[in-house]
Amino acid sequence: MSSAVLWTDVAPRDGLQNVSATIPTDAKMRLVRGLLDAGVPRVEATAFVSPKWVPQLADAAALLDALGDDALPRLRVLIPNSRGLELALERSVRNVLVTIGVTETFNRRNVNRSVAESLADLGGIVEVAHANGCSVDVALSVAFGCPFEGRVAPDRVSDMCARVADAGVDEVGIADTIGVATPAAVTHLCQLMSAVVPAERMSLHVHDTRGIGVANVVTAYQSGVRRFDGSVGGVGGCPFAPRSTGNVCSEDALLALTSLGATTTANLAALCDVASALERDLGQPLPGRLYRAGVWTGTPVVDDAAEKRVG
Amino acid sequence: MSSAVLWTDVAPRDGLQNVSATIPTDAKMRLVRGLLDAGVPRVEATAFVSPKWVPQLADAAALLDALGDDALPRLRVLIPNSRGLELALERSVRNVLVTIGVTETFNRRNVNRSVAESLADLGGIVEVAHANGCSVDVALSVAFGCPFEGRVAPDRVSDMCARVADAGVDEVGIADTIGVATPAAVTHLCQLMSAVVPAERMSLHVHDTRGIGVANVVTAYQSGVRRFDGSVGGVGGCPFAPRSTGNVCSEDALLALTSLGATTTANLAALCDVASALERDLGQPLPGRLYRAGVWTGTPVVDDAAEKRVG
Repeated sequence: MSSAVLWTDVAPRDGLQNVSATIPTDAKMRLVRGLLDAGVPRVEATAFVSPKWVPQLADAAALLDALGDDALPRLRVLIPNSRGLELALERSVRNVLVTIGVTETFNRRNVNRSVAESLADLGGIVEVAHANGCSVDVALSVAFGCPFEGRVAPDRVSDMCARVADAGVDEVGIADTIGVATPAAVTHLCQLMSAVVPAERMSLHVHDTRGIGVANVVTAYQSGVRRFDGSVGGVGGCPFAPRSTGNVCSEDALLALTSLGATTTANLAALCDVASALERDLGQPLPGRLYRAGVWTGTPVVDDAAEKRVG
Repeated sequence: MSSAVLWTDVAPRDGLQNVSATIPTDAKMRLVRGLLDAGVPRVEATAFVSPKWVPQLADAAALLDALGDDALPRLRVLIPNSRGLELALERSVRNVLVTIGVTETFNRRNVNRSVAESLADLGGIVEVAHANGCSVDVALSVAFGCPFEGRVAPDRVSDMCARVADAGVDEVGIADTIGVATPAAVTHLCQLMSAVVPAERMSLHVHDTRGIGVANVVTAYQSGVRRFDGSVGGVGGCPFAPRSTGNVCSEDALLALTSLGATTTANLAALCDVASALERDLGQPLPGRLYRAGVWTGTPVVDDAAEKRVG
């Protein structure tokens, strides 16, 4: 199958949504522009959600206006419901992401709907979006574990994958919302998923909460997944794990994937520059590793510190 | 082949050697004791190297004395040469690690010898050590890349692996000293290595400098490697990459390995407690992830922050 990876950088949405610091709209614009200029195929720029729940993204409309029409073809926007879709279409958004929790408790607390209601709404959202030239991706939240219901049966997730795929969505993603996925769990769920979703429409969204995010991405790639979410610099966090880090770091994960023959339009050195700029804007170091050390070119680096090196 | 992994925690040596803060000997003793109590099969406690080069480890003898004889069977000590072996044997050390740089420049700057001289010395070190009931492990530094000579030919590394194995050492390790290994490079080098070194004697030592350390460990495990080095909390750094993180995090890597069926005597929750204690002793957060989020037990965790969660 193809070695081309469709990487979506979700730093402006999932990343910034989960850091305490808020940055001005023009800094967000620089972030999104930087990611697009770095060759990232797609950027999840923001979300049309209640500012009451997510104040960090209250400037969604202003950000999209500032980015301009030329950026739209490579932007994705998260929407929780039909109302969010209306707001997105008003801004000519071409790609939206709908999240549906796999468990009743999570979905209820997340979008105040039962899973059945969310699945029922999906058909209408897809119909309206497609009629307006907007593609619809779905991310199944807490697919590897739920903070309220604990373990989640993989069959339950693959059943939802099938129902979501049948609804005609353009991408079906499994999201490790709380960072509890493992390589073994990823392999198992990807196998079940590939039986009900075309490989080219499968997606994986992982958080590096427990330090094995890149390993999970590599495992999913080896299982045939070609669409992934991550955040530049690994910016972000998790409301269910204080002090924890964010989404898997885009440039770190892409370094591992490209070593295995995966191809991407993203430039890793340019992504490192974007991470460094974001670090300055947020005023705090990011979890990512590559942007601190730099892409190794294979050429010698002389350093006096070598004198002190033993072992 | 066996699923049992022999994990060596090198935080007290490679980790502490590469952090600016120095901690008192009694804190190091608590660290080593904590690691042993957490079930880590082996701990690289310190090194008998010149305090002029590595002041952080100047208390090697005092630390070993404080740890006492009962700890010795599970401790490893780094030695740069025969003089280091003498000092280790004076303290009844049962397992030493000799590092040999794969490149002339690195080895010269590291131990002030040519590679040929280091290999020649090795025979005598093995003879004396074995005669004194002490096993000898060798780590081939900069096996994946050298800061002074750049790329390193895998054949050159496997040739050295063969010569080191022929010298009768008990473990042959390839060390990614500057954190430039990738899953593809690990797979390739492990394949070459397995042709000249018995699988049960192969070892991998990686740094998480570029965020793919755990992925590299998983890849090596899948290639048949069962011996690994890492540091609790991922403590450490790299003199060739300012601001970079340290060895691959022991508990994060073991989380990934055990999910794949690998077995270890180490207890992950206990390792997280050791990392938290080390964070307090060093007065700074460690790079590791799992110790911040905690081991996920699969049971529900109710958290009001969920109200704010969208996506």
